[in-house]
Amino acid sequence: MPGSSIGECFRVSTFGESHGPAIGCVIDGCPPGLALVEADIQGDLDRRRPGRSRHTTQRQEADQVEILSGVFEGYTTGTPIGLLIRNTDQRSQDYGKIKDTFRPGHADYTYLQKYGRRDYRGGGRSSARETATRVAAGAVARKFLRERLGVEITAWLAQMGPIRARSFVREEIGRNPFFCPDAAVAEEMAAFLDALRKEGDSIGARVDARVGGMPVGLGEPVFDRLEADIAKAMMSINAVKAVAVGDGFGVVEQRGSEHGDALTPQGFASNHAGGVLGGISSGQDLTLSVAIKPTSSIRIPRQSIDLHGEPLEVVTTGRHDPCVGIRAVPIVEAMLALVIMDHWLRQRAQNGDVHPPLPPIPASR
Amino acid sequence: MPGSSIGECFRVSTFGESHGPAIGCVIDGCPPGLALVEADIQGDLDRRRPGRSRHTTQRQEADQVEILSGVFEGYTTGTPIGLLIRNTDQRSQDYGKIKDTFRPGHADYTYLQKYGRRDYRGGGRSSARETATRVAAGAVARKFLRERLGVEITAWLAQMGPIRARSFVREEIGRNPFFCPDAAVAEEMAAFLDALRKEGDSIGARVDARVGGMPVGLGEPVFDRLEADIAKAMMSINAVKAVAVGDGFGVVEQRGSEHGDALTPQGFASNHAGGVLGGISSGQDLTLSVAIKPTSSIRIPRQSIDLHGEPLEVVTTGRHDPCVGIRAVPIVEAMLALVIMDHWLRQRAQNGDVHPPLPPIPASR
Amino acid sequence: MPGSSIGECFRVSTFGESHGPAIGCVIDGCPPGLALVEADIQGDLDRRRPGRSRHTTQRQEADQVEILSGVFEGYTTGTPIGLLIRNTDQRSQDYGKIKDTFRPGHADYTYLQKYGRRDYRGGGRSSARETATRVAAGAVARKFLRERLGVEITAWLAQMGPIRARSFVREEIGRNPFFCPDAAVAEEMAAFLDALRKEGDSIGARVDARVGGMPVGLGEPVFDRLEADIAKAMMSINAVKAVAVGDGFGVVEQRGSEHGDALTPQGFASNHAGGVLGGISSGQDLTLSVAIKPTSSIRIPRQSIDLHGEPLEVVTTGRHDPCVGIRAVPIVEAMLALVIMDHWLRQRAQNGDVHPPLPPIPASR
Amino acid sequence: MPGSSIGECFRVSTFGESHGPAIGCVIDGCPPGLALVEADIQGDLDRRRPGRSRHTTQRQEADQVEILSGVFEGYTTGTPIGLLIRNTDQRSQDYGKIKDTFRPGHADYTYLQKYGRRDYRGGGRSSARETATRVAAGAVARKFLRERLGVEITAWLAQMGPIRARSFVREEIGRNPFFCPDAAVAEEMAAFLDALRKEGDSIGARVDARVGGMPVGLGEPVFDRLEADIAKAMMSINAVKAVAVGDGFGVVEQRGSEHGDALTPQGFASNHAGGVLGGISSGQDLTLSVAIKPTSSIRIPRQSIDLHGEPLEVVTTGRHDPCVGIRAVPIVEAMLALVIMDHWLRQRAQNGDVHPPLPPIPASR
Repeated sequence: MPGSSIGECFRVSTFGESHGPAIGCVIDGCPPGLALVEADIQGDLDRRRPGRSRHTTQRQEADQVEILSGVFEGYTTGTPIGLLIRNTDQRSQDYGKIKDTFRPGHADYTYLQKYGRRDYRGGGRSSARETATRVAAGAVARKFLRERLGVEITAWLAQMGPIRARSFVREEIGRNPFFCPDAAVAEEMAAFLDALRKEGDSIGARVDARVGGMPVGLGEPVFDRLEADIAKAMMSINAVKAVAVGDGFGVVEQRGSEHGDALTPQGFASNHAGGVLGGISSGQDLTLSVAIKPTSSIRIPRQSIDLHGEPLEVVTTGRHDPCVGIRAVPIVEAMLALVIMDHWLRQRAQNGDVHPPLPPIPASR
Repeated sequence: MPGSSIGECFRVSTFGESHGPAIGCVIDGCPPGLALVEADIQGDLDRRRPGRSRHTTQRQEADQVEILSGVFEGYTTGTPIGLLIRNTDQRSQDYGKIKDTFRPGHADYTYLQKYGRRDYRGGGRSSARETATRVAAGAVARKFLRERLGVEITAWLAQMGPIRARSFVREEIGRNPFFCPDAAVAEEMAAFLDALRKEGDSIGARVDARVGGMPVGLGEPVFDRLEADIAKAMMSINAVKAVAVGDGFGVVEQRGSEHGDALTPQGFASNHAGGVLGGISSGQDLTLSVAIKPTSSIRIPRQSIDLHGEPLEVVTTGRHDPCVGIRAVPIVEAMLALVIMDHWLRQRAQNGDVHPPLPPIPASR
Repeated sequence: MPGSSIGECFRVSTFGESHGPAIGCVIDGCPPGLALVEADIQGDLDRRRPGRSRHTTQRQEADQVEILSGVFEGYTTGTPIGLLIRNTDQRSQDYGKIKDTFRPGHADYTYLQKYGRRDYRGGGRSSARETATRVAAGAVARKFLRERLGVEITAWLAQMGPIRARSFVREEIGRNPFFCPDAAVAEEMAAFLDALRKEGDSIGARVDARVGGMPVGLGEPVFDRLEADIAKAMMSINAVKAVAVGDGFGVVEQRGSEHGDALTPQGFASNHAGGVLGGISSGQDLTLSVAIKPTSSIRIPRQSIDLHGEPLEVVTTGRHDPCVGIRAVPIVEAMLALVIMDHWLRQRAQNGDVHPPLPPIPASR
Repeated sequence: MPGSSIGECFRVSTFGESHGPAIGCVIDGCPPGLALVEADIQGDLDRRRPGRSRHTTQRQEADQVEILSGVFEGYTTGTPIGLLIRNTDQRSQDYGKIKDTFRPGHADYTYLQKYGRRDYRGGGRSSARETATRVAAGAVARKFLRERLGVEITAWLAQMGPIRARSFVREEIGRNPFFCPDAAVAEEMAAFLDALRKEGDSIGARVDARVGGMPVGLGEPVFDRLEADIAKAMMSINAVKAVAVGDGFGVVEQRGSEHGDALTPQGFASNHAGGVLGGISSGQDLTLSVAIKPTSSIRIPRQSIDLHGEPLEVVTTGRHDPCVGIRAVPIVEAMLALVIMDHWLRQRAQNGDVHPPLPPIPASR
């Protein structure tokens, strides 16, 4: 209930501040019999790890994960899996100047109000580094979903500021530092960020995602509809300000005759719904969009106040991302994995084998 | 865990199908000492009740709520509050034709896959009428929030199809059947819907909301950020396909120098964040936007299949809404009340009186 | 979290005070496809209903249950089941005298401290009548367990004050008003209670229970061991002061060489463990014992204080049980059903069909 | 939900097998501002650590705890506290012989049935060492309860096999290796265990506990009564088979005129109830009793079967406790701390400051 856990059947509890000794998590509820070694998790972490390009934070991190429990002779045992990542590269002094100030757009003020004290170093628990634990836990879920159910989760940077990807080539996503599926646009993004870096400013972004191979029947109406838990997971990611499923805000101007996905003997004719109907997965691909705000940690001086209410200017130095949306791509994938894994286990509890399922209707694509 | 409950400290468990004997809910965790009678709840229900205008469903419902427990001599006792609403006006025969078909865009298919059987009458538990229980529970939360904390929740229809409200006059919201804050635009909406009704089609909508008087410090990072639970609550409403907080998808093209809400000794200079920072309420107004898809129950013939996979056309007759977005306005308010109430109790558990709070920074408006 | 719900996958939320308009519950998570009508529940309620004999409370109650939702054409739909029982026979005036006093051993004082107000009529929510909702919900679980899994739950009055049952004949349990499996002892109990009634005093009791046909593998170590959740369920019953599984407190003086249940190719050789090993059901019968204190509502004057701290004598008149242990028998069965049902669904989520189960070892009896 | 977490507001999630790399836990919900260093926790761990006497397991463990997060400049921050204890002394080879057998009374069989695989080394997660994490988490709760609320938790070995403590001297508890409050009886226990050790057998025990300085009003009827959550916590401890509160099974033969704790202007006249009334703490001391079975890991040959159902004899060698009840004493204290801490935070959510509390009635002792 205190907020650092997610999931009912596949429950993940995280801990750790960016500048404390370590970060980590406990995964409770992973089914036994899944082959699992550190490398299965390290891959997803490395993808997230800064330093991949000059466009993300220059902090060098080993981010080496260690499996502390829950695995025996290479397979999960069904008991809790403890994952640990030691913090190795921290430059606390970068943050010393901001100890008594509130950075506009940052969580400093609200954290102090709530807790009466705050770890001013690097944003404490509100920092993006905390999400490494989510990626680690998500990697376990993804492996199970892929191997056992054939579920494939893909996210990519669809838009950076005014720059939109114009084509979609899956293999391109992993070839550039932006997770952009359009090679030409990736070049534009590189130039754009270099300019932004010189200005000392930051920019927002949009991350899109698609999940293929979705089982039918995931989601627990009325309050735990699949898209509701997905929305919560997305909005729990630092800097996310909006979530859209299927046609998203596009539905506002659609008519029912346009929006409804017709069913034919060959399958669904379209996918405006985005893979969920009545809160339950239909077997069609899940499609969604997430809006990420520009980071508040910029070099441009900003007006703020100190702890005593006196006006002052805030300038953040040190290592920062001009576009945190890039780093959000693996986190979106990880969170989707956690929610889908959790719902797959939940529906198995609620519906298991009580009735013979109908043969699924072929998806439209 | 099965999905029909929401809230950790202010927990609401709902039950009831639109064509069963009754719908209702149990509220567990309402603090004692709140003055409460049926009329306090009936008001919010009446506002939702169809029949207010020719533009909403023609089903006549008494929707009379009865308090079964949890209140003694006019005050809540702190024990569970049972609320009951009998179903009085049901025309089952309207739905007989669709027993063996799947309506495009409707939950028929997914519900059958999941449960192995479905109550085909009126959409069963996926129907909009089920949300009357949410409005009833929300009314209790709203009363507490308003009387004890001065929190005011307002939602309105900001857009219907292509038609947008161009001005905002709070009192106008309650004067027209659309919850539109712009009298002139309300006239346009009326004409638009009449035409739509003749065509037998439906249209999407956008509902905006604002919460004033917000306490500081609500929200439990990292997974139960306030906006995350709000997003989940919004997406749990039937037909919602997207949620945005603050500037929403507008942040994608914003720079950090624009987006950050500067702090001055007189208070926040803007509210791009929409009232939450780092997952915690800042004291500024909560602002959000919700996208609602057009209903699938239309008179225009749609292509579908029956239970045996054979193609057929589906036409829904009977009483339906051409724009379910209208009815969503009170539901959005109710769900916001439930989430804020729950988080206020949660933060009281986690932080109570352990440290003296700082004086809140005046909001920007 | 507020305390009026139990269960993770088979969740029951109760409401209602003994002297309010009605009591009831919502069952969320019952699998679809279970045949269910009011009569299936009424049987268990009637067994509990006072008036069966002169030895229980003379309050006449119809206790007629109504199914409000979750059932369609005679089968559960998988959606929440609302159950309602109207309160028909209440004599509030019986309790008027105690409005400003605290009855020794009763919850009056603690309830007032906790909630700041209390419903003094008949004990409000702490009353035994509230447990009718548990019996109703338990009836649904029992039906599923019996029909789908062959689980049989039996409880009986093993001891009343100094009088112990000396033999066990299952059919005898339902033939006398005490649920005593020993006809001769039942006669002794009758005489004992008549004497007690004249004295105006009350007596404690011990209820034993056995569950046959237990599936193997229920229980979620480390904190949600099967016996842990059973103990919680038992101690949540009004007036219960102790719970024992298997040999209970007898294990204190046992040696390991005596206690361990040997495994032979023909099955377990004994059942000191009581059906659970390492927190998980072994397939052997669950055996347990529950201690119930004597009721505090007696006619013998007791020393107490009023709301202002002034000493006074308390005498309770009206209709009361001299031995509430009798009424606890069906409640113990109902609570066992709820816990076992919940754990069966939980283990199905966690372990489902991931590995082929070993053939169960035959139980020792 | 998967079973490795406990608590709603003060939530503890544990991980780790006795022979894996490490054990640990995450505490979520500890209020900010509590002074905390490793030494505060190490003290409670050392008390539990084997090697204190020849009467407990000879395994040498450093059991050094490390705080990984949640503390800044010596005070808790309100964010999750990660605790880690590396496993240093493991003799896996001691367990090699039992890989394919089921030890009578042990969890081997049920774990294999449930998970399809088991970590046969040292009992995996069912081992007593896993409880070190509980003691570590409990230490944090105890510190808060003692410093902020004046709550004192004391447990002791009241009985070992046939030997009962005959007097109670608090300071004696920490002076002998048995946590026995009676110095003379401690000598008898020493001799008894030496004899038992030679025989290669084990013995059961009874642990009693008392909590002083209890706040009034803890407990959430109807299902989360304080004694219900306490019972669950006790029965979640390895080897516990029964729990009793107040007079426990003694109430079976008591009359209401004897059992009820009279209220006088000077306070309660007795404490048969054991500190809870109607599921809520009364301010009186909590008193309870726990029965612990004799360990199944004994040198006396026991009859069992192997994985193929063939009969064989099992003899366990290596380092074992003849009386695990001794080690349970600090674990009982830790679990009581966790439950009381959790309930204190819960009642603060539910009741906070809504009504002025009555002055508490002085306890009877």
